[in-house]
Amino acid sequence: MFLVEGNKIINELPDSKFKIKEIFSTDPQKLGRTEAPVTHISENELKKISFLQHPKDSVAVCYINEEERLADKNLQLVLDGIQDPGNLGTIIRLADWFGIEQIICSEDTVDFYNPKVIMASMGSFTRVNIVYTNLVEYLSKSENVNIGTDMDGENIYSFEKPEKLNLILGNEGNGMRPETEKLLQKSVMIPRFGKSQSTESLNVSMAAGIILGQFFRV
Amino acid sequence: MFLVEGNKIINELPDSKFKIKEIFSTDPQKLGRTEAPVTHISENELKKISFLQHPKDSVAVCYINEEERLADKNLQLVLDGIQDPGNLGTIIRLADWFGIEQIICSEDTVDFYNPKVIMASMGSFTRVNIVYTNLVEYLSKSENVNIGTDMDGENIYSFEKPEKLNLILGNEGNGMRPETEKLLQKSVMIPRFGKSQSTESLNVSMAAGIILGQFFRV
Repeated sequence: MFLVEGNKIINELPDSKFKIKEIFSTDPQKLGRTEAPVTHISENELKKISFLQHPKDSVAVCYINEEERLADKNLQLVLDGIQDPGNLGTIIRLADWFGIEQIICSEDTVDFYNPKVIMASMGSFTRVNIVYTNLVEYLSKSENVNIGTDMDGENIYSFEKPEKLNLILGNEGNGMRPETEKLLQKSVMIPRFGKSQSTESLNVSMAAGIILGQFFRV
Repeated sequence: MFLVEGNKIINELPDSKFKIKEIFSTDPQKLGRTEAPVTHISENELKKISFLQHPKDSVAVCYINEEERLADKNLQLVLDGIQDPGNLGTIIRLADWFGIEQIICSEDTVDFYNPKVIMASMGSFTRVNIVYTNLVEYLSKSENVNIGTDMDGENIYSFEKPEKLNLILGNEGNGMRPETEKLLQKSVMIPRFGKSQSTESLNVSMAAGIILGQFFRV
């Protein structure tokens, strides 16, 4: 089971593949239509259940859905060991914005049922298929072009996007694993205009956003 | 005074306009060159000082710098009531990446000396001039073109960027204030490709990243 917090996201669940087991709400009147049993609770009880510093109106206990990998989509995100729940949530939201239907994660990527991921994704987890798998095995068989990010890669502003691609994003601190890197066919970089001499790079979800912004340029 | 945490950022301070008053470190050997007095402290003492869940190696107490507004730059970010410290930090880091030298904030924008902002900016706050001012007054006098974001705005992929501009970003929940909105000369939007019917938009810092990614396209 996993927890979804806040009426706004809970109300998106009936249109998704996620089934609600039960809801606990401080104000059941404000919930949208639902077939799940609803229990009226106090603010104090909600505080004890919630993972948030400032709990919202309701929490829904939902059934975990064993995700199946769908056939390769033309543009997929592939995550190699993303650890920060906020980053994963933001990446799911970004995928949803651009209509990316599937995200493939390495087995050690943070669990997407983590309450912080669910919160940061703002309901987008209901519209993107997220699967965990052995990346080396997956990437060596995928017919999409495997594209990574690298300061020595091709400039995204002149890069010619292949028709079918996997955009691979690595771990926040260490980047992608050497085994994954070996399976790249291309790599791209975002030119830096600042004068900073530091090796500091953009946050992984921000880099993904800027690259996707270019890929979707019409 | 304000607090900077971690050797990595502390080591960037001597090249900036921020003066260190003193440093407390669990391992003074690992600090870079500094003229500030250094006190050796225990891990436990650091825990008591630090604002982080997982404190780093050192903390530096620094003098607040009363920022002066510089002459208008060709491309500036203007923040109207950004509240989340993580968002402000991310936006400062983004500005640094693209070499944007100045960010103008409304007086109710979150304080950039907030420890969470400093952490999220990863040292970029040393390279970007951040000033707080009355936005209505400022924007009505600025000679840059004031550009906002709006789902009915011009598509960023075909938008012709003026030579001198202020990109204005509004509050996370409520967008920009009506008084600010009145001062816009243009607005832009990022096309959405996803099938989501929800009114959910991209996070403000992500939207800024994608827009700047287009503005810096050569």
